[in-house]
Amino acid sequence: MNERMSERFVDLIQRKRDGGRLAPHEIRDMIGRYTGGQIPDYQMSAMLMAICFQGMDDEELTALTMAMRDSGDMVDLSPLPGVKVDKHSTGGVGDKTTLIVAPIVAACGVPVAKMSGRGLGFTGGTIDKLESIPGFRTDLTREEFFCAVEKNGLCVTGQSGELAPADKMLYALRDVTATVSSIPLIAASIMSKKLAAGSDKILLEVTTGSGALIQDPEGSRELARRMCAIGRGAGKETVAMITSMDEPLGYAIGNNLEVIEAIEVLRGGGPEDVKEVCLALAGMMIALGQDGAAPTGNSYEYDAKGYNPSEYNSFEKDLFLKGKERAREALESGAAFEKFKAMAAAQGGDVSYIEDTEKFEKATVSGELTAEKSGYLSRFDTAGIGVTASLLGAGRETKDSAIDFSAGIRLKKKQGERVEQGEAIAVLYTSGQLKLAQALEHMRGCVEISGQKPAPIQLIQDIIR
Amino acid sequence: MNERMSERFVDLIQRKRDGGRLAPHEIRDMIGRYTGGQIPDYQMSAMLMAICFQGMDDEELTALTMAMRDSGDMVDLSPLPGVKVDKHSTGGVGDKTTLIVAPIVAACGVPVAKMSGRGLGFTGGTIDKLESIPGFRTDLTREEFFCAVEKNGLCVTGQSGELAPADKMLYALRDVTATVSSIPLIAASIMSKKLAAGSDKILLEVTTGSGALIQDPEGSRELARRMCAIGRGAGKETVAMITSMDEPLGYAIGNNLEVIEAIEVLRGGGPEDVKEVCLALAGMMIALGQDGAAPTGNSYEYDAKGYNPSEYNSFEKDLFLKGKERAREALESGAAFEKFKAMAAAQGGDVSYIEDTEKFEKATVSGELTAEKSGYLSRFDTAGIGVTASLLGAGRETKDSAIDFSAGIRLKKKQGERVEQGEAIAVLYTSGQLKLAQALEHMRGCVEISGQKPAPIQLIQDIIR
Repeated sequence: MNERMSERFVDLIQRKRDGGRLAPHEIRDMIGRYTGGQIPDYQMSAMLMAICFQGMDDEELTALTMAMRDSGDMVDLSPLPGVKVDKHSTGGVGDKTTLIVAPIVAACGVPVAKMSGRGLGFTGGTIDKLESIPGFRTDLTREEFFCAVEKNGLCVTGQSGELAPADKMLYALRDVTATVSSIPLIAASIMSKKLAAGSDKILLEVTTGSGALIQDPEGSRELARRMCAIGRGAGKETVAMITSMDEPLGYAIGNNLEVIEAIEVLRGGGPEDVKEVCLALAGMMIALGQDGAAPTGNSYEYDAKGYNPSEYNSFEKDLFLKGKERAREALESGAAFEKFKAMAAAQGGDVSYIEDTEKFEKATVSGELTAEKSGYLSRFDTAGIGVTASLLGAGRETKDSAIDFSAGIRLKKKQGERVEQGEAIAVLYTSGQLKLAQALEHMRGCVEISGQKPAPIQLIQDIIR
Repeated sequence: MNERMSERFVDLIQRKRDGGRLAPHEIRDMIGRYTGGQIPDYQMSAMLMAICFQGMDDEELTALTMAMRDSGDMVDLSPLPGVKVDKHSTGGVGDKTTLIVAPIVAACGVPVAKMSGRGLGFTGGTIDKLESIPGFRTDLTREEFFCAVEKNGLCVTGQSGELAPADKMLYALRDVTATVSSIPLIAASIMSKKLAAGSDKILLEVTTGSGALIQDPEGSRELARRMCAIGRGAGKETVAMITSMDEPLGYAIGNNLEVIEAIEVLRGGGPEDVKEVCLALAGMMIALGQDGAAPTGNSYEYDAKGYNPSEYNSFEKDLFLKGKERAREALESGAAFEKFKAMAAAQGGDVSYIEDTEKFEKATVSGELTAEKSGYLSRFDTAGIGVTASLLGAGRETKDSAIDFSAGIRLKKKQGERVEQGEAIAVLYTSGQLKLAQALEHMRGCVEISGQKPAPIQLIQDIIR
């Protein structure tokens, strides 16, 4: 460790501790020296804790994110035609939107060249879900990836290269130093990878509620605002949609269970909530992806009854609504489903599973969670339901754990529905009786039944940029 | 690193970050595992930063301090007769009080068995100052130390054994992570060593002003209050005196220069400010050290005009004033000076230097700092004057640096005095012209001359327990 440099870094920690600003060049230098091993972990963790308390302004945050982005490989999507729009979700339980949104958008002529991650959370990530289709390859080479996009206008594959390794280092340190929950640090972490992934524009789905990374609506909005500001600062148009994660999305939670539900939606059926969120996301991606016709106003406002006309730019609203209409047509005409099958075929997946979802591997053990009393399902602890899915085998405990593709949960009832004592609320799928018993016990604590019917969930709560 | 333990420690960091309390057993466990290498530096630095923001209450702080105390050796002074009172100063420039207070107190029959530190600051510590008397040994064995106290009632030696090694580890980490300036952490650091040093009671001198560790009076009071609470929590009566460090104490700064000034005071002369502070400190030590007659009230209040009768317990005030009177007698009778010579003789020091201070080594190079304009000396940057002394060679830059005993500063004028343009404000002593030039330039910026005579300095600002 270079004493002199380390001395100077102490001064930066102190300035941040005392509420001062770090200059962009100081932040860039900090990330360069940290990834180069010249700033030790014990200084960086003190800096991260100081940031937890004092925050960072948009200029600091953009500099941090861009320095993290520049620490590794950058994907260059420019050889591909059209405006490439990336989509990212801050995560939730039962979130299968990418499986549906990507083929819809591609069917509308907007190219989707998406690199997705594996899950370390409750259930697998999009890549894990796709891999539950036998033969589906997510380890495409750069050439295969580009070819697939050129041919079908659509490819979803795993990350190649090392995107934003500084984020990986910082995240590992934050994880053991109680500095994970800082909104600016979360924003920088997500956006560093998104900026490195090479898209022209970014659509963020920021979840909020009991199953979200940030559960309170104001915190979720703040995260969305900070990420949009970073995108703007880095020169990439970024829009965020705040969506509810107060209950799981749809009925299916778990890898092939979610693929099956996504296929139902692509076939024109499926749960209404999944459809509503997917059409909104797809509509916005289509609006953003139209060459030269991207929304440019200041604020989209969206509420349960429609749009707030006083704050909504009519040109933008129009673009978004037109996008949604086109998305609905692509879904209803079956064009999106054809795109999904074409993608699967191009990536080696066995399309017969998609044609006949009965072929998917089934769990050997299952059991019902039944209602202990009659009443309304008044509240889900959605994160707790995610933990239940993980206990069943749907998630990955460590980076190298295997996922049980058929494990998971199928809800029989959603929030607000009436249940009678003894009636099934959900069916749990797993590979052993002990796991089942533990999961049933865990999930029992995640469901509240009361005599009062709860207010309906507002699925899409805001659109921010 | 034990993963499971490390996980649990993250939860403690998070609780502190969120403003929660740590239980005493958790704090004890934390220190045990940190010193045992089971908690890595990067987690401890995040915890320290969280403490900087969220603080610690008295119970947490006492637990922390006692755990740090227990991390190493404990001195057992119980074989020595009488109530042993330790004295500690948070440091300053020109602070030679121990050299004067210890022999006064011993001359009044209260035993002084003191282990002092070396200085890493502006000038040497008490041990370095004593070592500027040729032959003076400060590396006494435990037996020699006890014998000297039994024989003379007085011994000041270096620390033997390793007191509070957890503090050493934590301090090294705080130093590079901008977590030094937290008042609770400062309090724990000081008190862990004092509690390990084996005295029955503790008198703290907490300096305040431009040359102090904590410059603002409220911060200094807060530090004093926290240290007294720790002492109380650990079962040792602790009193703190807040003294001004808005200018150097006395005229001499530097090791043998300060010894010479201390000898002048012990001989009945010397600067008034040194005498006032020393008599107050000695008076309090005598009051505390009288068997079974230690002050027991809630608050000593002291102001420039005397004592605040409404908040002062008259029994305590009486004890303190009687102690001060006895201290004055010991000084004026020459008994304290005899004690000082006896201590030097017992520890191998050449007493002829004390009899004739002209014998002390003199600097080879000296130069005057002169006034650039006429006016009143309105403000000293006392810390800056300390840095000047260090530039001249009086301090130690690293643990292994040698000290130049004759280097330092002799002020010709004190704050509030009138100077004419070209008149000497101070004489600087060192071993080379380059060092002299640099030091003169540095010190020039530490002295303010203005047309307004400043308010007099209030030397003893408060007494807290």
